[in-house]
Amino acid sequence: MKTPTTIADIPTPALVLDAAALQRNIDRMAKFYSNSACKLRPHFKAHKTPEIARRQLAAGSCTGLTCATVAEAELVAGFCDDILIANEVIGSDKVSRVAEVADRGVDIKVAIDSMDGLTQLAEAARNRGVEVGVVVDINVGMPRCGVAPEAAMDLAGKAAQTAGVKLRGLMGYEGHAVGIPERDKREHVAKIAMERLFLAAASLRDESLPCEIVSAGGTGTYDITGRIDGITEIQAGSYALMDTAYAKLDIPFEHAFWVLGTVLSRPTPTLCVLDSGHKSCTEDHGNPDVRDIPGASVLFLSDEHASIMLPADSKIAVNDRIQLVPSHTDPTVNLHDVIYVLDGDKVTDVWPISARGYAEQRRHG
Amino acid sequence: MKTPTTIADIPTPALVLDAAALQRNIDRMAKFYSNSACKLRPHFKAHKTPEIARRQLAAGSCTGLTCATVAEAELVAGFCDDILIANEVIGSDKVSRVAEVADRGVDIKVAIDSMDGLTQLAEAARNRGVEVGVVVDINVGMPRCGVAPEAAMDLAGKAAQTAGVKLRGLMGYEGHAVGIPERDKREHVAKIAMERLFLAAASLRDESLPCEIVSAGGTGTYDITGRIDGITEIQAGSYALMDTAYAKLDIPFEHAFWVLGTVLSRPTPTLCVLDSGHKSCTEDHGNPDVRDIPGASVLFLSDEHASIMLPADSKIAVNDRIQLVPSHTDPTVNLHDVIYVLDGDKVTDVWPISARGYAEQRRHG
Repeated sequence: MKTPTTIADIPTPALVLDAAALQRNIDRMAKFYSNSACKLRPHFKAHKTPEIARRQLAAGSCTGLTCATVAEAELVAGFCDDILIANEVIGSDKVSRVAEVADRGVDIKVAIDSMDGLTQLAEAARNRGVEVGVVVDINVGMPRCGVAPEAAMDLAGKAAQTAGVKLRGLMGYEGHAVGIPERDKREHVAKIAMERLFLAAASLRDESLPCEIVSAGGTGTYDITGRIDGITEIQAGSYALMDTAYAKLDIPFEHAFWVLGTVLSRPTPTLCVLDSGHKSCTEDHGNPDVRDIPGASVLFLSDEHASIMLPADSKIAVNDRIQLVPSHTDPTVNLHDVIYVLDGDKVTDVWPISARGYAEQRRHG
Repeated sequence: MKTPTTIADIPTPALVLDAAALQRNIDRMAKFYSNSACKLRPHFKAHKTPEIARRQLAAGSCTGLTCATVAEAELVAGFCDDILIANEVIGSDKVSRVAEVADRGVDIKVAIDSMDGLTQLAEAARNRGVEVGVVVDINVGMPRCGVAPEAAMDLAGKAAQTAGVKLRGLMGYEGHAVGIPERDKREHVAKIAMERLFLAAASLRDESLPCEIVSAGGTGTYDITGRIDGITEIQAGSYALMDTAYAKLDIPFEHAFWVLGTVLSRPTPTLCVLDSGHKSCTEDHGNPDVRDIPGASVLFLSDEHASIMLPADSKIAVNDRIQLVPSHTDPTVNLHDVIYVLDGDKVTDVWPISARGYAEQRRHG
């Protein structure tokens, strides 16, 4: 099968990327942090695409990259020597793989929120003869991982005394704040969350424990949390590609990717059906929008179909191409193996979404 | 990386399969159709796994397989010579690939609901020197593809006169009926839908047009639509693996697959966090259930996390494994590259989910 040369040749459904819009988003974010004590640590989980991560690093203002999984860290270690896995890593295979990444000369740090997590990681590091960085994960308000601020000092103190790991500081993700559309409310919730993080940080410093890293934030709070004194880095990811959920916020980033579909059916004057269902575009943040067709909207997605309501006078026909604007970047990107890079209607490149899915499974397949 | 030998070695998140439960589901469905004029055409889209499709065919009562996409058809053509793509195929590349499958000696049939679809397919078939079967897709009530029953005869008549295609009959999917939990309502809606299909069938027979295939149905209506005189085959898929949406119905199929996760965090007495978020288990039919932990339920899924509420006395600890029962089979399977086959806690095999995602993209990557 030939690589497509224009958008009309791309086999659908597929992701398409406006490379210029992507670069504008990356440059805008890099500029924001260029004269800032707080730096950017772009989250790789959002796009899982090395070609995008390389551009984020090249734009500057970055301390390194954030990853969600060991498989992502293994991949980005090929081009980035400063990685934070902003997530707990549990299980003998996975902690060994973290130690292997450290052994490649990468300054890798992992979130911990339990003695089990600390012990497993330290043992794997000692077995490999390396030292792995740790940050204590603080629960800053969302019912997910992280210890309470009051418990941070205890776990940090144990980490500081454990051979194989090196205490580097703290992290706390205000995931319950980043998506709030109203700026005043988002700011309010983010600031309360960061007070919890600073309570933990103060307790470490009181005991003279290392706390060089205080990591937080996301795309929705890049200019809120990212401007609070004491936060050292922001883990934003979605800003590069954007989605309709983040577009509801007053942030200066553009949609840079879409799901391309083909009109399979035109059953009534006000309905068309695309081949881009929710196996190609997730709906966990709601239905996607329809790009560039005034008055058109998604009626519902099925596995392999998008039923689209059209204005009564629509000239849309079978074989036409229609683009959907995803409501949630991360899981939508994860459904595809490549993203087709466009300059206007020309396909200029095809970038592998190398960290899509589970590398572990592909080794077992 | 070694292939895991027990459930404890499986890298998470991952799909696990109870092979005995799968076989019971397959046998139960095959038995239902064993003395029936209506046969089963299992839908490959539900599991995308050749090892499962082979077992469905081996169990008997099948006319062949149903596929949703050309890529699925290309794959199953390796072991099945009777395929229905129960979907419109549009675009020069895709119709050419259908003709190629026909050229491999496969009796392949494609749904059509427009002159464009008919013309494209016929041209590709003539270019290849083959004949491709078509069934006219009838809209039986769901706002998706398909012509109105009254319009069936016109399109069927044109198909019968078009070189390159061979009219084989009709299909109509009562997708708006299959998920209704109450049997009486489900039956009512399915029967109205099938009246629309029979109206179309009668119009073809009045004109002496071929109508040997009248294809419909799904897992939720296998024993309703599948017992209506005149329906020749049922396109059920989910019965093999099952999900919580279909488990609400009074149908005799068991859960046969789950999403295996690892406890990453135990932040409060009544909360644990797994590594199996909605990148591993979709939530388009709602949150998954928690398997085998009375009183536990999913609070919410994030991209890489499942936050689980636990009973106050729960002994669940970091490093434990917990299984989620998916709410929707098809898109959940599509997130994984393999499924780990279990006999009790032993991993007996690893089956590739060969049709996951988009084969076209992997050829361009």
